Amino acid sequence: VRNIGIVLSGCGVQDGSEIHEAALTLFFLDRAGAKITCFAPNKEQYHVVDHYTGEVRGGENRQVLVESARIARGEISGLSQAKVELLDGLIFPGGFGAVKNLCDFAFKNENCQVNKDVERIIQAMHTAGKPQGFICISPVLAAKVLGSFHPRLTIGNDQSTAQLLEKMGAKHIISKVDEIIYDPDHKIISTAAYMLGPTISKVAVGIEKLVQKIVEVE
Amino acid sequence: VRNIGIVLSGCGVQDGSEIHEAALTLFFLDRAGAKITCFAPNKEQYHVVDHYTGEVRGGENRQVLVESARIARGEISGLSQAKVELLDGLIFPGGFGAVKNLCDFAFKNENCQVNKDVERIIQAMHTAGKPQGFICISPVLAAKVLGSFHPRLTIGNDQSTAQLLEKMGAKHIISKVDEIIYDPDHKIISTAAYMLGPTISKVAVGIEKLVQKIVEVE
Repeated sequence: VRNIGIVLSGCGVQDGSEIHEAALTLFFLDRAGAKITCFAPNKEQYHVVDHYTGEVRGGENRQVLVESARIARGEISGLSQAKVELLDGLIFPGGFGAVKNLCDFAFKNENCQVNKDVERIIQAMHTAGKPQGFICISPVLAAKVLGSFHPRLTIGNDQSTAQLLEKMGAKHIISKVDEIIYDPDHKIISTAAYMLGPTISKVAVGIEKLVQKIVEVE
Repeated sequence: VRNIGIVLSGCGVQDGSEIHEAALTLFFLDRAGAKITCFAPNKEQYHVVDHYTGEVRGGENRQVLVESARIARGEISGLSQAKVELLDGLIFPGGFGAVKNLCDFAFKNENCQVNKDVERIIQAMHTAGKPQGFICISPVLAAKVLGSFHPRLTIGNDQSTAQLLEKMGAKHIISKVDEIIYDPDHKIISTAAYMLGPTISKVAVGIEKLVQKIVEVE
């Protein structure tokens, strides 16, 4: 049995984890027989977005761990608890939470800072030679934390985002939504998902391949 | 192309729609080529539950439509807008939101009241002879609204809940998580999902069958 961690960043595409991507990751991992552990940093969300109107709700605060627990049905731990020796792989779903709560790329671009617990676990998994999967916009995290290793990553075909990844040291590869990009030197897998879309069954194809790779890679 | 509606009840198993059930319903419908329209009633949630601790958060209010929009990525309409003539089928995912926000079964049992928009659409779909799918605990809604027609329904094998469905007029059928119960007289399909569990890939089997039936039934 492979023990795979998932790092969530809230609950909802505009201010947290993209729900479809997170749920599909859980689905494909569970179907593949993996033992899943969900994590999220125990911190306040950058902000709260009304997903009906698209507007930021000033004055409302939500916690990343507490909202992520909605996706995990309560079975979730603080990311500071994550131990590399207990994990065979780690996956970061997308959603703006990955670039608003796990780092501040949404506001600072290539000069972003990564949450300390996120930085620590990505570095430690890489050092241990264990596979990591990055979905949608979350390859930003791998580019920032592991940029000095020049990992090969994809966020689809958005040129300006791809250029920012390259500024952080990554090598960006253009991809389609049903593809994964695998960098065997660093055991990093990425897929564009809702960076391309257009619909849940399309993004599912790439996510299923990413999960399969995470479960298979030794 | 089949036009299928989904009625959401918030975002999170304890106070809204069960996220895995809702996301899987979207996934299987999209993969089957259906055109999906999400709806939710525009009302305040009964309450807000901290999904990390399991505790009710007193004093916090959230709107059912706004939180449901997280699952629907913003593409959602108020349930009062739903028109039977534009729908070929309708699905209700589960989660406590179905029995706290769409009706008050969680507190009043067989004496529950159903939200007027929910009652209207279930009655109208039934009158029009169009298929409706009820997942997890949401068969409660069919039992209450259509009890006088004695529909055959399942919520798995929980005896006390099954008895309450029968008090409302339904005929309860014991089922396994990978099964659906289809009542051809009323075109009502139900599957137990997280009423039985235990995990997302297991509940997916029943949900996939329910979606397939909704898309096929004439």
